[in-house]
Amino acid sequence: MKLSPGSRVAGVFTQNRFCAAPVLLCKAHLAANGEIRALLVNTGNANAGTGDKGKQLASQTCDALAHLLDCEPHQILPFSTGVIMEPLPVERVISGMPGCVADLHEDNWLNAAEAIMTTDIVAKGVSRQIHIGGQSVTITGIAKGSGMIHPNMATMLGFIATDAAISQPALENIIHHAVNRSFNCITVDGDTSTNDSLIMVATGQAGHAEISDTASSDFILLRDTLTEVATLLAQAIVRDGEGATKFMTINVEGGRDEAECRKIAYAIAHSPLIKTAFFASDPNLGRILAAIGYAGVDDLDVNLLKLYLGDVLVAENGGPATSYREAQGAAVMQQAEITVRVVLGRGDAHATVWTCDFSYDYVKINADYRS
Amino acid sequence: MKLSPGSRVAGVFTQNRFCAAPVLLCKAHLAANGEIRALLVNTGNANAGTGDKGKQLASQTCDALAHLLDCEPHQILPFSTGVIMEPLPVERVISGMPGCVADLHEDNWLNAAEAIMTTDIVAKGVSRQIHIGGQSVTITGIAKGSGMIHPNMATMLGFIATDAAISQPALENIIHHAVNRSFNCITVDGDTSTNDSLIMVATGQAGHAEISDTASSDFILLRDTLTEVATLLAQAIVRDGEGATKFMTINVEGGRDEAECRKIAYAIAHSPLIKTAFFASDPNLGRILAAIGYAGVDDLDVNLLKLYLGDVLVAENGGPATSYREAQGAAVMQQAEITVRVVLGRGDAHATVWTCDFSYDYVKINADYRS
Repeated sequence: MKLSPGSRVAGVFTQNRFCAAPVLLCKAHLAANGEIRALLVNTGNANAGTGDKGKQLASQTCDALAHLLDCEPHQILPFSTGVIMEPLPVERVISGMPGCVADLHEDNWLNAAEAIMTTDIVAKGVSRQIHIGGQSVTITGIAKGSGMIHPNMATMLGFIATDAAISQPALENIIHHAVNRSFNCITVDGDTSTNDSLIMVATGQAGHAEISDTASSDFILLRDTLTEVATLLAQAIVRDGEGATKFMTINVEGGRDEAECRKIAYAIAHSPLIKTAFFASDPNLGRILAAIGYAGVDDLDVNLLKLYLGDVLVAENGGPATSYREAQGAAVMQQAEITVRVVLGRGDAHATVWTCDFSYDYVKINADYRS
Repeated sequence: MKLSPGSRVAGVFTQNRFCAAPVLLCKAHLAANGEIRALLVNTGNANAGTGDKGKQLASQTCDALAHLLDCEPHQILPFSTGVIMEPLPVERVISGMPGCVADLHEDNWLNAAEAIMTTDIVAKGVSRQIHIGGQSVTITGIAKGSGMIHPNMATMLGFIATDAAISQPALENIIHHAVNRSFNCITVDGDTSTNDSLIMVATGQAGHAEISDTASSDFILLRDTLTEVATLLAQAIVRDGEGATKFMTINVEGGRDEAECRKIAYAIAHSPLIKTAFFASDPNLGRILAAIGYAGVDDLDVNLLKLYLGDVLVAENGGPATSYREAQGAAVMQQAEITVRVVLGRGDAHATVWTCDFSYDYVKINADYRS
């Protein structure tokens, strides 16, 4: 992907200590404050767990693309996704570049979304239009990812671009706001990848005055629309979770703080026992109580909490609700999109996590991935 | 199980906030300091997530057994394992009691181990003999559990008895020593049950002088043998993990403290991606580096660590070892028992965790469990 001259770029990256060579280069190139001119993505090989050699190979790919585009290597951001701890086939990447560069077009977003897929089944793209200062502003994003998905961040690559004009600090503000409400709220299998990267690009071509006041209504409109695009992309990753048959929204409310709400939401979202029960459409909902109980909120009073499946009150007073009938739970379990709601009854904080069920196909996909 | 008069009893229980009604009663009955006379176990229903009603039903079962055995209800310890959030079928439990009481025999350990199985495939029992003060001392334990297995503790019931004579404080010392080196070092799926209970009984019938000095060689012999029995039972639970085809030992060495070693060992042991790769016998070992990287040891220097699969050095200096060939990893992966060894190179602490792989059958067993 080649960027318009004058584009502003912000990025957030995996917190995995074994972060990949391209992630290290992305951070260095963004820190160099040179104008970023292109994003270079390969799939099939993560170039992670590859030591110094991996960094050399990633640099070689930036050198080659910079030569083709007549810019400096630090104006390229490289991204890789695929198998870890195998050497990047750098000749294949470089030999493909002239063809890629010749094929660059403004309306190639969908092609790019398809090109970055690995175990993804569906290409993931979202676009929105808003109006700022009388000008039409477009926001378009693509993402890939379906396994090794956990926040901070998912195994995922996400690229969101807008033609809005925005200052660099305001763009940094937005990317952190958006990632905390989108990619950092999803999980498929609890594994945090070595290569996660989310990039936001603002080309400034829309023609309105540059946004820099983070209290302005234009900023908030742009921020919320970028966040919506990021959220829809993040949810698309969960919907396409490896082997997923159901999309689950876990809402935890009434907590003392967001952290304890997230703890409980993730305990539910990570439990293989709960995920397999959802796969089976079996309202074996005691497993949800068990996950709430071991989530690590040590002073939780289980007698105060309420558990809902969809709109159905399932549990209260430490046990099943007297009104609850298994047929109600079974009916909700038949749905393809299910909300689990936990009301803790000890405060005003809340958190939401999106996840998917756990099927035979998750095992099959990950047992067979390399073969 | 009926205990000899004068038996000393110690227990440790789940830390799940939704701990089951029988766990609450066990704790209350042990705190009452009356002599415990019998252990009452039912399977198929966990009597957890059942609120006040669940406590009433558990009490009714203790009342009924106390009546049969001519003792007080607080001299009974009740245990349940099975489905959560369903009412205990108390009439069925009580109506079975006279037959159970009539059938009590000293050599019924194996029958008891079989009777407490749920999704277990193999009955789990271990026995050892030692000599203390010229007397032969026997230690025998049984356990159940195969899913919802995670420390603090596993979904498991464990009962270990000895005819050794030991003071109550010394027995409490041993049970905590043993559980921290056995049941708190295993995981199948990361779920912590509502019902976990480990009980140690010392009848004092062996005829030697009572052990109370925790520095004595007799104490250490007894402690280490009880710990060995607990460890073998815990490992038996992992070997019988739902759908398990491989037994994995995760050794993490060279850490600054045991806590960080355990963090990394559990990150590896919990990763569905690693567990499915082991199921497939696929040496996709970059997934192990990724798990080490996201385990939460924030200042870990990945260039210092070494990863071994069995005796094979797989990774060092942040990438694959130059000596490593995939055929070596593939050969180790064919084995039924595999050791993963991580040497962190930053201290002297170490930790071990035992786990199993993740197969189609795990999903099948847990999708079908209630049907």
